[in-house]
Amino acid sequence: MPITNPASLRINAQRFRADFDALGRIGATKAGGSHRPALSPAHLEARAWLRARAREASLEVRVDGAGNHSALLRCGQPAAPCLLLGSHLDTVPNGGCYDGALGVLAALEALRTVSESGLKLNVDLEAIDFTDEEGTLCSFLGSHAVAGNLRPQDLEAPRGGREAFEAGLSRAGLTRDGVLSAARPRDHFAGYLELHIEQGRRLEAAGVAIGVVSAIPGIGFYQLVFTGRADHAGTSPLDERLDAARGAAAFVLSYPGVVLSGFPNCFANVGRMRLEPGASNIVPERAVLSLEYRSPQTETFERLGAALIENAREQAAQTGLGFEAEFLGSHPPAAMDAAVQAQITAAAADLSLTNMTLPSRAGHDAQTMAALCPAGMIFVPSVGGASHSPAEFTRWEDCVNGANVLLQTALRLAA
Amino acid sequence: MPITNPASLRINAQRFRADFDALGRIGATKAGGSHRPALSPAHLEARAWLRARAREASLEVRVDGAGNHSALLRCGQPAAPCLLLGSHLDTVPNGGCYDGALGVLAALEALRTVSESGLKLNVDLEAIDFTDEEGTLCSFLGSHAVAGNLRPQDLEAPRGGREAFEAGLSRAGLTRDGVLSAARPRDHFAGYLELHIEQGRRLEAAGVAIGVVSAIPGIGFYQLVFTGRADHAGTSPLDERLDAARGAAAFVLSYPGVVLSGFPNCFANVGRMRLEPGASNIVPERAVLSLEYRSPQTETFERLGAALIENAREQAAQTGLGFEAEFLGSHPPAAMDAAVQAQITAAAADLSLTNMTLPSRAGHDAQTMAALCPAGMIFVPSVGGASHSPAEFTRWEDCVNGANVLLQTALRLAA
Repeated sequence: MPITNPASLRINAQRFRADFDALGRIGATKAGGSHRPALSPAHLEARAWLRARAREASLEVRVDGAGNHSALLRCGQPAAPCLLLGSHLDTVPNGGCYDGALGVLAALEALRTVSESGLKLNVDLEAIDFTDEEGTLCSFLGSHAVAGNLRPQDLEAPRGGREAFEAGLSRAGLTRDGVLSAARPRDHFAGYLELHIEQGRRLEAAGVAIGVVSAIPGIGFYQLVFTGRADHAGTSPLDERLDAARGAAAFVLSYPGVVLSGFPNCFANVGRMRLEPGASNIVPERAVLSLEYRSPQTETFERLGAALIENAREQAAQTGLGFEAEFLGSHPPAAMDAAVQAQITAAAADLSLTNMTLPSRAGHDAQTMAALCPAGMIFVPSVGGASHSPAEFTRWEDCVNGANVLLQTALRLAA
Repeated sequence: MPITNPASLRINAQRFRADFDALGRIGATKAGGSHRPALSPAHLEARAWLRARAREASLEVRVDGAGNHSALLRCGQPAAPCLLLGSHLDTVPNGGCYDGALGVLAALEALRTVSESGLKLNVDLEAIDFTDEEGTLCSFLGSHAVAGNLRPQDLEAPRGGREAFEAGLSRAGLTRDGVLSAARPRDHFAGYLELHIEQGRRLEAAGVAIGVVSAIPGIGFYQLVFTGRADHAGTSPLDERLDAARGAAAFVLSYPGVVLSGFPNCFANVGRMRLEPGASNIVPERAVLSLEYRSPQTETFERLGAALIENAREQAAQTGLGFEAEFLGSHPPAAMDAAVQAQITAAAADLSLTNMTLPSRAGHDAQTMAALCPAGMIFVPSVGGASHSPAEFTRWEDCVNGANVLLQTALRLAA
């Protein structure tokens, strides 16, 4: 076995590319993206493919009760802590080829590179594919299961509906009891590292290769209900109606101003709207909207949620409607570990890569892991900032750079 | 058989009330309304009840290929024309107890009253319950079938969706071929008369007992699609989005002004809205809206449709969105026959009932029948104007007055 200088180790870029292309064929869409919603047949096919790659590389394969898939490289010391690298293979419906996939493949490639080098570490290395990061069925199901955050009642009303959730579990051979049994002890992890595309334009605009993530925004969810009066659409005069759609419309037009005027680096979205009873000849009695909002800081996070609800209430009052907001839950903002950030920055500098520190704008499993162990994230540039769409694209050179920063940061944390 | 003076004939108000109460128990809702969507089990139960009432009164029962249910009182002359009285037993989902039901029961009661009187007429009298006046499955299915307006392709994409339509036909023992075979020849009908609640506040506000309908508004249907760009809701800045919901919201807030400022006696409604892809964490790429509009006059009907689409196009342009409008069809405005209007007015005056002439605001089967024969409608006051809701209510005295005007107008037209 040759003596290896850890700092000179690099991932195998050709093998990494071959994996990326092979995975991209699973759930490929005509538009050039990926459709692998959590626990869909395409997602399960991608997981079978990942197991085969791990076995091919003589890595141990581990599948826990929440369906999380891991490749393991043990250091041989009993009860050694685990340095976890990873991301997710699931996508939003008709999403892109990079979100999640890049981080899982880079983690796998990092383990193979270390394994081939013969380097002896003081930690076990684990490359994980977390279940349902995108929350198609149940938000952050895999990482919340590992963190022990889930209660039986959380699985009663999952975000994607109970029927779809149960069907997904069944398709994957999972059970709700199994999901609840996947928690690992807090002292199990030495740390968590994730490589991901930025999903924004900041790195590209700055011409910088590597982003060192400072924090992951908190995200909150509400259901808003505006209530008016059902009337016959052909007999009730337009100026005498209590049309629930008007309050909803006024809110859709006004909430962007609430965010832009008072909450820098914050976001909100109304992605779903339903009018009831939902007949073309009945004036809408109820308008039911989904509202989500995001902030990287705990203090603005709570103020933002309150300001948006207050705005919706004002719009309802101005249109003569009733209003109710139901809080559906939140994931609080999570700071990334300062020491991990410093190691990522040092690793990038050693690789002569330009880098900058920035908050994430999307949620990631790293925010769950941050409560368990020192966690960090590495971003690479998204061309045009496109994400959750087939237009998602990151230059291959940036992907390789990101994977090498992941590898080198892992070696620094394992030292 | 005593000699009867036709002008002295009155319906049996007690029997009429007993029928109204018995029918009201079929599909009764907790809120005090009726839920009998076309061809639902409750609607079919109401039709079985109607057949039993007709047989009990020794009237002939006729059910045509479109499921239209009739009681027939033949005059005995071969090839006599038919004076058709009627309305519909179906309701909107969670509707009221008067819309449609009142007209069918009054028609049945008129036939029973004439039959008992021994009067000999020169026309056959037919009391009809038209299928799906409310258009839950397929707009004005029954009257369009009788008028021969339906083509096979009209039954391919019915308003309520093909699956629900086929299920309804199957439940009722009907077939699409049967529906298409229900047309009757143009010279079959001597006229058509319908008693209905006003579904508005005009008679009540004027303190008038009887409304003589001058015209039935045309109604047109569009599907509107605003198109923007799907983006990650946590990474795309709020001032850089192309959020399809914003165009839809701007239209919802502006279309009432288009109608109120330029189109008196006209109406419009957006009763359905869907955001796509419909995920809380994706900026809406498409907003799909139903638009319907109504006018009593042919000239304003067409201008109104065009003005609403033009407004929607402007809102899309101002919010940077793409826009498409798909015309889904229309029922043109229909004038009621002038001679029939005069007979209704005379019958009301003979009964010492205050009356006024007014256009309908809702659509009715009479607009279809107006193309086949002289048609007329009689309105009675709606308390508070409520309609298509459990709050629908008409004082019983007004119901009895309306039924007597229906009877007396029928006798005048049959003379």
